[in-house]
Amino acid sequence: MTRAELISEIKAKQSFLCVGLDVDLEKIPAHLLTTEDPIFEFNKAIIDATKDFCVAYKPNIAFYECLGVKGWESLRKTLEYIPTNCFTIADAKRGDIGNTSTYYAKTFFEYLKFDSVTIAPYMGEDSVTPFLEFKDKWAIVLALTSNKGALDFQFTRDESGQELYKKVLLKTASWGNSGNTMFVVGATRAEGIGEVRKLVPDYFFLVPGVGAQGGSLEYVARYGWNADCGLLVNSSRQIIYASSGLDFAEKAGNEAQAMQQAMATIIQERGFN
Amino acid sequence: MTRAELISEIKAKQSFLCVGLDVDLEKIPAHLLTTEDPIFEFNKAIIDATKDFCVAYKPNIAFYECLGVKGWESLRKTLEYIPTNCFTIADAKRGDIGNTSTYYAKTFFEYLKFDSVTIAPYMGEDSVTPFLEFKDKWAIVLALTSNKGALDFQFTRDESGQELYKKVLLKTASWGNSGNTMFVVGATRAEGIGEVRKLVPDYFFLVPGVGAQGGSLEYVARYGWNADCGLLVNSSRQIIYASSGLDFAEKAGNEAQAMQQAMATIIQERGFN
Repeated sequence: MTRAELISEIKAKQSFLCVGLDVDLEKIPAHLLTTEDPIFEFNKAIIDATKDFCVAYKPNIAFYECLGVKGWESLRKTLEYIPTNCFTIADAKRGDIGNTSTYYAKTFFEYLKFDSVTIAPYMGEDSVTPFLEFKDKWAIVLALTSNKGALDFQFTRDESGQELYKKVLLKTASWGNSGNTMFVVGATRAEGIGEVRKLVPDYFFLVPGVGAQGGSLEYVARYGWNADCGLLVNSSRQIIYASSGLDFAEKAGNEAQAMQQAMATIIQERGFN
Repeated sequence: MTRAELISEIKAKQSFLCVGLDVDLEKIPAHLLTTEDPIFEFNKAIIDATKDFCVAYKPNIAFYECLGVKGWESLRKTLEYIPTNCFTIADAKRGDIGNTSTYYAKTFFEYLKFDSVTIAPYMGEDSVTPFLEFKDKWAIVLALTSNKGALDFQFTRDESGQELYKKVLLKTASWGNSGNTMFVVGATRAEGIGEVRKLVPDYFFLVPGVGAQGGSLEYVARYGWNADCGLLVNSSRQIIYASSGLDFAEKAGNEAQAMQQAMATIIQERGFN
């Protein structure tokens, strides 16, 4: 999906919501466990219920990988099922030396047909750039993550006083452009979103941590919004596990719709039509 | 596998060689392509030919993942085939927020039964420690990698002059111990190996980059050796692609044996018996 197509979907749906498909056999409704592929059945129902309220889906690959061959099959079927007007994110946090990163890129872009993959930047340029060589595909690079461990290394200041996450942002932005690179910027560090927005005004951010992890949608929009919206706000557990009963899909749809409506207000306030 | 068992294997085989199973359908001998599972057939022959000369095997997961369900099946069969006295490393470079890292750990430690996984440290403590909670399993954390991109972030000095890779080493070492944590230290940065050894005298290093990438075995041993050897030196392409003909396994065995003999000399010089 191109940047223009993504922006057009955001306008059409009045939403910048990404639904995280972190699907755990221990958390999905019990009545699905007797089906042949419970993970896929769950995803199918969640997608049907939320697709009008979100512009993106983000399966975290760990949840599928841990089920082995069966998990990869559920993932493949899920990707085929997601409507083509939704942006898809493989939350895989991959990254390796150059030729190996190319294999990861092929896995997610060609085999599974994702639009984007999340990338861990520690190994530097040749671990990131192979993901930029695929037409209309995206690298979403970890900059400022939403977890507690983000404090361990990401805020380390160099001799000039620059934090590591800012160095990662600026270097990585220079390897690609705002049409093939996004950044993960956690909502739990909202003070950071404004800083990051100043450094890379044009780039889209994938923002985890709103909702269950405590981040605020208004705060994220206030500090992170740019001329093209520039935000994909992810919510996983709060939507997909809104209910563990027979009504799980309906409740997930309600949660997604509530977030979409809050986003529509923000979009309209900014005259983004 | 415990640390004591690993050390005992190094002594018994007079080797600290790790064979990297970075197996690419485009590079394996053509006559294998007509078999039902070419990747597994290749690995089986390589393992048979090299198992007396190495103490560890390291499949890079990217090469299996890109083949989808079929690749995961080849990987699973390969893990079952590796003799139990060999240490196994999932070169996966994973890392995510706490509960998600636990799923990655389960994938590699429980489903595939690897002894260890390589970990990208950018997300900090809660992305690493879930891998330390499995008995006799290991986290092998990226510190100083062998690729060109290592220069982008790993050598960034903080306000006290400490490079990021040293901060990663010291922090990560404090989360685990030398019985459940190792570090990736590239041979192409041999000047760094001595520095790293001073910081974490007891820990094992997984050293890529000897051979094809230009690192020298003697140099690595001179600067990286500790009282328990403390080194696993990886070689991938130089061994597994020593020949692309019918004699590929024999030639791989010869290469592995040549490295083992060079290692035996180093081991004997140090009286490590």
